[in-house]
Amino acid sequence: MTWPPLREELRGIEPYGAPQLSLERAPVQLNVNENPYGPSSAVVADIATAVAHAAVTLNRYPDRELVELRAGLAAYLSADTPHGVAPEQVWAANGSNEVMLQLLQAFGGPGRTALSFAPTYSMYPEYARDTSTRWVAGRRDGDFSLDLDAARALVEAERPSVVLLPSPNNPTGTALPQAAVTTLCEAVGDDGIVVVDEAYGEFRRTGVPSALELLPAHRNLVVTRTMSKAFAGAGLRLGYLAADPAICDAIRVVRLPYHLSAVTQAVALAALRHAPELLGRVDDLRAERDATVTWLREQGHEVADSDANFVLFGTFADRHAVWQDLLDQGVLIRETGPDGWLRVSVGTADEMTSFKDALTRATRESA
Amino acid sequence: MTWPPLREELRGIEPYGAPQLSLERAPVQLNVNENPYGPSSAVVADIATAVAHAAVTLNRYPDRELVELRAGLAAYLSADTPHGVAPEQVWAANGSNEVMLQLLQAFGGPGRTALSFAPTYSMYPEYARDTSTRWVAGRRDGDFSLDLDAARALVEAERPSVVLLPSPNNPTGTALPQAAVTTLCEAVGDDGIVVVDEAYGEFRRTGVPSALELLPAHRNLVVTRTMSKAFAGAGLRLGYLAADPAICDAIRVVRLPYHLSAVTQAVALAALRHAPELLGRVDDLRAERDATVTWLREQGHEVADSDANFVLFGTFADRHAVWQDLLDQGVLIRETGPDGWLRVSVGTADEMTSFKDALTRATRESA
Repeated sequence: MTWPPLREELRGIEPYGAPQLSLERAPVQLNVNENPYGPSSAVVADIATAVAHAAVTLNRYPDRELVELRAGLAAYLSADTPHGVAPEQVWAANGSNEVMLQLLQAFGGPGRTALSFAPTYSMYPEYARDTSTRWVAGRRDGDFSLDLDAARALVEAERPSVVLLPSPNNPTGTALPQAAVTTLCEAVGDDGIVVVDEAYGEFRRTGVPSALELLPAHRNLVVTRTMSKAFAGAGLRLGYLAADPAICDAIRVVRLPYHLSAVTQAVALAALRHAPELLGRVDDLRAERDATVTWLREQGHEVADSDANFVLFGTFADRHAVWQDLLDQGVLIRETGPDGWLRVSVGTADEMTSFKDALTRATRESA
Repeated sequence: MTWPPLREELRGIEPYGAPQLSLERAPVQLNVNENPYGPSSAVVADIATAVAHAAVTLNRYPDRELVELRAGLAAYLSADTPHGVAPEQVWAANGSNEVMLQLLQAFGGPGRTALSFAPTYSMYPEYARDTSTRWVAGRRDGDFSLDLDAARALVEAERPSVVLLPSPNNPTGTALPQAAVTTLCEAVGDDGIVVVDEAYGEFRRTGVPSALELLPAHRNLVVTRTMSKAFAGAGLRLGYLAADPAICDAIRVVRLPYHLSAVTQAVALAALRHAPELLGRVDDLRAERDATVTWLREQGHEVADSDANFVLFGTFADRHAVWQDLLDQGVLIRETGPDGWLRVSVGTADEMTSFKDALTRATRESA
């Protein structure tokens, strides 16, 4: 056997990763959909105080059931649905990618199928591969929406036990109508779960509802969220979900004991206490996003409608050349999505000005 | 299908977990091998400062490759081996259980086998189950040591791709001689890896070496450690390993991106800076452990030799009754290990006095 004796399907694969470049190399970082606004010094101080409190008993294992945190997250989510969310409907882990892994460990695995619709988040097939779950990708329409008849037919043909539906979708920014969620929950039935990944949910445009509203109607519906984006906590790694309590209980069978540290629980609770401030920039970012979409269209680019904090635009005969040209000007965006498209995260007004200037120069040079 | 549509092998299984009882219910908690000594106020303050520094950029993703932390852990481990440990030999995750899961995702999985020798850590078969890895358990001898000829024969018969060798073993406290590690590394060869789980390694008795010394001799050897025990950081959830750099690279294919938060990395680095203080109680705990072994033997109990911060003792016709009697006296120990045995973690001198008094009363009552 070749060394090291890695599983066959993992050999020669490069680890996932957007380039992590220094601020010297790329002063304007618009590649991983981070929130450009760090916490205020008051929030930083409260986080430090919370950690100091938790650290006094750092020799003890954390609460394995995350009781206080689940209550805090439930209260936060309850603002997004008239039905409210109860603590026993909530589960949390180290980033929504650990939430996804746990869901696939519990409901996917050998002999089972996970299904999504491409183009979509590039980690989904990796979660499936890492849990030995069969992966099926349907297609989105040209405008990145879902053809519901085709989607239902695919579910009926493939019988997935996990359907992954990001809304807004990454990297296209496309939100799903409630009818899509309802149709797929009904098509899947009790044979599986439908995971609506709302990592970017707080950035959705006015009038776009959250799938949280549909929880009482579908016991197979799971809505995931993260504190990485709207909450400006990418460094915290806190993802969570809302679902039928039976689904949370099922996850407890596969979750690693004490998976969420006492420090993470303390920082997440501190962040929840400061939700109004941390989320205070969401409206600014939505306005900046809409302005970016408008500006890109004015320049003649094709632009996907976005309910997220990023914008997918194109199309370029040589997108890598455009990406490289921007990077040479100090602006790091992401080469992802369908051929010819590029994705830019929404930063501060100054950062978006740098992006626009750099893109103008790059496209002028290539013209 | 029954609801929820959990994988068949997971249905009806209770989640892992030692009872987490309140301090009111059980003032003396000696059940999960925690270090009884919390950090000093100086260490707490430094941890809070480190987190405050990291929180300023909490809106950004953490270093995915843990560069600074891996260097710090390598420097720490280098004290335990004349060959030293380089940063590229080190990997870290949220607790050594996430390290184990990553190892099994990379090197185990469907069609592959993980092997250990019972009685051993109860989570190992769960890691195997959660990665769909076939699980084989050989037997330890009556004194919980390994019969090397039988162990080698089992490896040759079963061809495991992962061998899990805790040293000291949990729940028996038994350390392995270097000859056992060497024999099994040679038997496995390039077909797999041998994981020596040194979660309790720092508590080993004088003269018992670490398997770290054997790393240059066996590229298939992985030594895991944790900050939960000797480092008194169970609430931090920081596990790590030392191995051939090719093994670290292999794990990077299956690790979830940004699995270790900026906060966890900052707290772990702060803890490493205070290693002398945090580890300062290890000698006290070893002395208390040895005294506990001696006392239990003086009372006529059978006691396993221990190189860990816990002691396995017995045997009781009705161990549950003894466990319950101790709990009714406020002393929580662990009902684990082979039939008839109980495990007690080594706490402070006061806590061990409470344990001894309670056990004396419990055995007098049952006699």
